[in-house]
Amino acid sequence: MQLLKERILKDGVVKPGNILKVDSFLNHQMDIDLINEIGKEFKARFSDCPITKILTIEASGIGIACIAAQYFHVPVVFAKKSQSVNLDGEMYCTKIESFTHKKVYDVIISKKFLSPEDHVLLIDDFLANGCALLGLIDIVKKSGATLEGAGIVIEKGFQHGGQQIRDMGVRLESLAIIDSMTDDSLTFRD
Amino acid sequence: MQLLKERILKDGVVKPGNILKVDSFLNHQMDIDLINEIGKEFKARFSDCPITKILTIEASGIGIACIAAQYFHVPVVFAKKSQSVNLDGEMYCTKIESFTHKKVYDVIISKKFLSPEDHVLLIDDFLANGCALLGLIDIVKKSGATLEGAGIVIEKGFQHGGQQIRDMGVRLESLAIIDSMTDDSLTFRD
Repeated sequence: MQLLKERILKDGVVKPGNILKVDSFLNHQMDIDLINEIGKEFKARFSDCPITKILTIEASGIGIACIAAQYFHVPVVFAKKSQSVNLDGEMYCTKIESFTHKKVYDVIISKKFLSPEDHVLLIDDFLANGCALLGLIDIVKKSGATLEGAGIVIEKGFQHGGQQIRDMGVRLESLAIIDSMTDDSLTFRD
Repeated sequence: MQLLKERILKDGVVKPGNILKVDSFLNHQMDIDLINEIGKEFKARFSDCPITKILTIEASGIGIACIAAQYFHVPVVFAKKSQSVNLDGEMYCTKIESFTHKKVYDVIISKKFLSPEDHVLLIDDFLANGCALLGLIDIVKKSGATLEGAGIVIEKGFQHGGQQIRDMGVRLESLAIIDSMTDDSLTFRD
């Protein structure tokens, strides 16, 4: 997605430890016009899929998923990262290791909101080692729903998550795939 | 907001401990059509304010803020609940006690995204004891930005947060205010 790649080149900042900061437009401050274009692009790429629900994970996936959901006309469900006193009843659970925060989370979704009749699109802002997405895939499998695919805004193609998930047969659409990254340059996959 | 009140009566579930579960449409599964109507209503109520930025707090405020921001044509900034390795540089910090999770969070916003030129609208899903909103108000004050007001989806009017914040002179618009709540009945403020 050309508009996104241009924005990453313009406003993204590379930090030590293979960190790409896009907090000025994607995951701290959010440029809603850009995110609308991202939502339209996800709809274009998955227009042949009978999506009934978009599934994401808190926190930074939620805004993107909600804006995208307007083009699919389906509800969003967001997985929660820790047990909350407000979430009782039966839940699907999995564990996710966060690259950013360097810890392991319990991730839960109420069973009420995913069923075998659902056709699910996963949406998230980043894909690097793939742990978050693998956790969501695990939850979709446990629910018996059909996984239609996953839409990612930025994939770090030099980490193994994307390859691993494609090798599982999951339809994965990343709007910008970064193949290499240094302080001075970013290279996108064609 | 009549549509919202009807939805709370239809799908809200009261749990022991003054907990109102609205997780089927607002803060776990999200009904995007309803949230669009909520966004339009916030725009109608704050149409006279020169809003430049919408500020919310992760996680469940983000989707509502992003949908609403489309009507204001401004960016969203969401406060983060804990220190992240991706958030360096100078930050505004405050502490928030969560009623839901019964713990104290550090809440941070990068100083890059709030400045004295900004006119800020706060948006969140719930207002009960007011701690989250007071934390956001504190951050706006620290930034020197102008606080135009706060838009809340559901206020628990029988807890003190709303009164405390109105007494501070903050323009607070809650789309549904619940004055009392039992297993059998909900009473809204007119």
